[in-house]
Amino acid sequence: MTVDTRFYAPLGALTLETAAALTGTKPVGDASAPITGLAALDQAKSGELAFLEGDGSAKPALSPDLSVVVVGSRAIGLVPEGVSALVASHPRYVHSLIAKALFKPRHLEGSLGAALVSDSARVHIDAVVAPGAVVSAGASIGEGTRIGPNAVIGPGVQIGRNCIIGAGASVYFALLGDRVTLLAGARIGETGFGVLMGPDGAEDAPHFGRVILQDQVTVGANTCIDRGVFGDTIIGERTKIDNLCQIAHNVVLGRSVVLAAFGGISGSVRVGDGSMLGGRVGIADHVTIGEGVSLAASAGVFRDIEPGETWGGTPAKPIRQWMREIAWVSKQAAPRKRD
Amino acid sequence: MTVDTRFYAPLGALTLETAAALTGTKPVGDASAPITGLAALDQAKSGELAFLEGDGSAKPALSPDLSVVVVGSRAIGLVPEGVSALVASHPRYVHSLIAKALFKPRHLEGSLGAALVSDSARVHIDAVVAPGAVVSAGASIGEGTRIGPNAVIGPGVQIGRNCIIGAGASVYFALLGDRVTLLAGARIGETGFGVLMGPDGAEDAPHFGRVILQDQVTVGANTCIDRGVFGDTIIGERTKIDNLCQIAHNVVLGRSVVLAAFGGISGSVRVGDGSMLGGRVGIADHVTIGEGVSLAASAGVFRDIEPGETWGGTPAKPIRQWMREIAWVSKQAAPRKRD
Amino acid sequence: MTVDTRFYAPLGALTLETAAALTGTKPVGDASAPITGLAALDQAKSGELAFLEGDGSAKPALSPDLSVVVVGSRAIGLVPEGVSALVASHPRYVHSLIAKALFKPRHLEGSLGAALVSDSARVHIDAVVAPGAVVSAGASIGEGTRIGPNAVIGPGVQIGRNCIIGAGASVYFALLGDRVTLLAGARIGETGFGVLMGPDGAEDAPHFGRVILQDQVTVGANTCIDRGVFGDTIIGERTKIDNLCQIAHNVVLGRSVVLAAFGGISGSVRVGDGSMLGGRVGIADHVTIGEGVSLAASAGVFRDIEPGETWGGTPAKPIRQWMREIAWVSKQAAPRKRD
Repeated sequence: MTVDTRFYAPLGALTLETAAALTGTKPVGDASAPITGLAALDQAKSGELAFLEGDGSAKPALSPDLSVVVVGSRAIGLVPEGVSALVASHPRYVHSLIAKALFKPRHLEGSLGAALVSDSARVHIDAVVAPGAVVSAGASIGEGTRIGPNAVIGPGVQIGRNCIIGAGASVYFALLGDRVTLLAGARIGETGFGVLMGPDGAEDAPHFGRVILQDQVTVGANTCIDRGVFGDTIIGERTKIDNLCQIAHNVVLGRSVVLAAFGGISGSVRVGDGSMLGGRVGIADHVTIGEGVSLAASAGVFRDIEPGETWGGTPAKPIRQWMREIAWVSKQAAPRKRD
Repeated sequence: MTVDTRFYAPLGALTLETAAALTGTKPVGDASAPITGLAALDQAKSGELAFLEGDGSAKPALSPDLSVVVVGSRAIGLVPEGVSALVASHPRYVHSLIAKALFKPRHLEGSLGAALVSDSARVHIDAVVAPGAVVSAGASIGEGTRIGPNAVIGPGVQIGRNCIIGAGASVYFALLGDRVTLLAGARIGETGFGVLMGPDGAEDAPHFGRVILQDQVTVGANTCIDRGVFGDTIIGERTKIDNLCQIAHNVVLGRSVVLAAFGGISGSVRVGDGSMLGGRVGIADHVTIGEGVSLAASAGVFRDIEPGETWGGTPAKPIRQWMREIAWVSKQAAPRKRD
Repeated sequence: MTVDTRFYAPLGALTLETAAALTGTKPVGDASAPITGLAALDQAKSGELAFLEGDGSAKPALSPDLSVVVVGSRAIGLVPEGVSALVASHPRYVHSLIAKALFKPRHLEGSLGAALVSDSARVHIDAVVAPGAVVSAGASIGEGTRIGPNAVIGPGVQIGRNCIIGAGASVYFALLGDRVTLLAGARIGETGFGVLMGPDGAEDAPHFGRVILQDQVTVGANTCIDRGVFGDTIIGERTKIDNLCQIAHNVVLGRSVVLAAFGGISGSVRVGDGSMLGGRVGIADHVTIGEGVSLAASAGVFRDIEPGETWGGTPAKPIRQWMREIAWVSKQAAPRKRD
């Protein structure tokens, strides 16, 4: 993954040696191996640091271009020939320390004296920025777009034409197409919910990805869409999201997906084009939902679903099965008349 | 329905002929028939444009005063004698195009240079507007009312006496009585979640209604109450709503209703006076709940409920039945001791 | 309970006699008995007013230091010898009237002309306050802390070092330790959801407590944490809370608790250290969850749970039992093949 420097300021590359010194870990391999970026284990290109957790019993998928990795002592046997390594007791935590040494998120910058609209923001002459709205450094606002009162546009955020950003909404680490609508209080690009273990206990996993909202996406009031850990959270063209929904990091929703209120989409879930998700639907992380799937209100999905299916219940199952089970229980449990 | 011009600026009336030209549809009937307003099919008065979808097999209720309608080609036989029509392949979409040509929502107006409190807003001398709050053109703030820091009051919004508007809350297209309390981040009057089909795919249904919050209503933090499509979303006197609830368009909650956190009330639902709704209750659209009904936490209601009943479960049923079924399953599924 | 005068301005003490005159209630006992504070019945110290509801049939726990109480006429027999009383038809309502006469919450103060950052706020020279943020009177912001654009810090709020307060978040009646992170739109310290009955119907219960967020707590976007009625809502060190959660008044979460999105924790619930709560978990009020408990996504908990247990379902039960019941129903309700 290439970290987008509009959102993350590069602080300079490290080497295996300097990274080891920074984190108190043991370097194995080429001391001068460069560390220039960050990635997941199966996607790392040369110079991108990944982490390898666990006791070495499970063999994860490794990118063929992997050049440098943080690894737990028990998993060191899994590191391929020619790949440099830092051996750490908390690999993911060490990875996060090095990540923060490589890139600094452009976030909550500026100071009270500063103008609400940064001098380095590009606001189209036919865009409207309402009173109290903040537009940060390097942001870009397209023709015909309206930014509501007290909304906040973060550093480097790119917003297309004829968008509407509701009152008090906030947008960070994000690229928005044309005709995107965010209702009031929507939260785009916050850090996703990731807890990693450090030597002193739970730590927040840092995030280095973005949010992409394609053309004509609508996001409801107070709905949250988190940015990716590495890579992006992507919402496809014309997808419509109701109020008070939660879209976690690295989710990919297809085109023309409909998501009703209180929908909760966990990390790395994929939902196919044209799927219809009823109110209060929840989907567990890493699940894949095919195209044209319908989910009944309050379905809790823990498994992949094939295209075109209709499911309901918690744990979710095909809707006919769910309804048959409900009817069967009602009938069986009913008080017997007479005998 | 009469569109409230405090919230929607009238752009001038159309005729059947000009509306047909605007939308590329076929006019049938009086070319000079005036189109001055918008309504649902069963409530339209003379001059108010309604839409008639479907294949003509179902016969919808029509207002006796209906004078002009957008209709799909297959349903044209349902248009009464003397009613003018525009024949369209996407009637609801054409209706929305004409609606936007008739009225422009007063929303996200103003510009960055403008004052936070508009010159045309009426703020009582004994009201308090905190730093950073925005009060838009034509809004009115009553005696003793306090507007919190960075709250946003939209154009034309009327707020009574001794109200409290929490930090960062936003209020649009709304009339508030006296002693109304909105906690921080509440979102009043956003567009409801309505997806209509246009020739190129899903489009957001425009909304031309309002939100009415009667005296002593309390709305929790980050709760959302959407405005009506046509007509109003109404919350009755002394009704108390917890944090993070969702009230959809055209809902009517009675007096002294209690709605706990994560309550989700779908479009056009009616809830009678004094009903008590537990946490995470969901009610499907168009359902009617009688007076004095109790719903157990996490009930999912898909049917009307008579006054005074207590229901629970998903799909919800009378609470005794629900509890009996739960107990029966537990007993039957328990591992047998001995044989 | 001692009311924190950083958050609640004392208006002067009352006596039994003056409180009776103020509320139209009947004093019984020492007319000059001082009323200086507020408390729950089992915790009241001398001078702190508590209330005693009900018909007198249930005998509540009384603090040995109780000196003055509001009581319903039917429960007057429960008032101990030597304790003064106000006899009222709505004891809790009368208690709230006297509470408001004793203390005025410091909330939504200031006026539009006032500076965004109050002269009486203490902001460390190495803290950053972004454009549009409001820091109210008496608030304190520690070294290295960043306050995001359009965030709101209420009067008297104390924030430690290296905290991050996201865009548009609001913090009232709260004490934050070091390295606390609030994502955008988080709502800390709002009034909890409490409805009490007055002579004219439902009234909001006033709140006189605080929110305590210990070191390294993380609170997700648009999550709400209400302050205590009397006493505090407390979130323990390193506890991590996802987006769109609701934490009610007087909840105590231990250290390193993990709460996923849409978690709903009702009033006075206690959760032990290291417990892991999945998405959309709900816990009914006054329930106690032990240390190291795991709750499956969408569990609805109505009973105490012992340390180390794993539960799921609604109503929640041990996870093996829940899964066995689900499997049993599926098997029994399946259509029979052949016979």
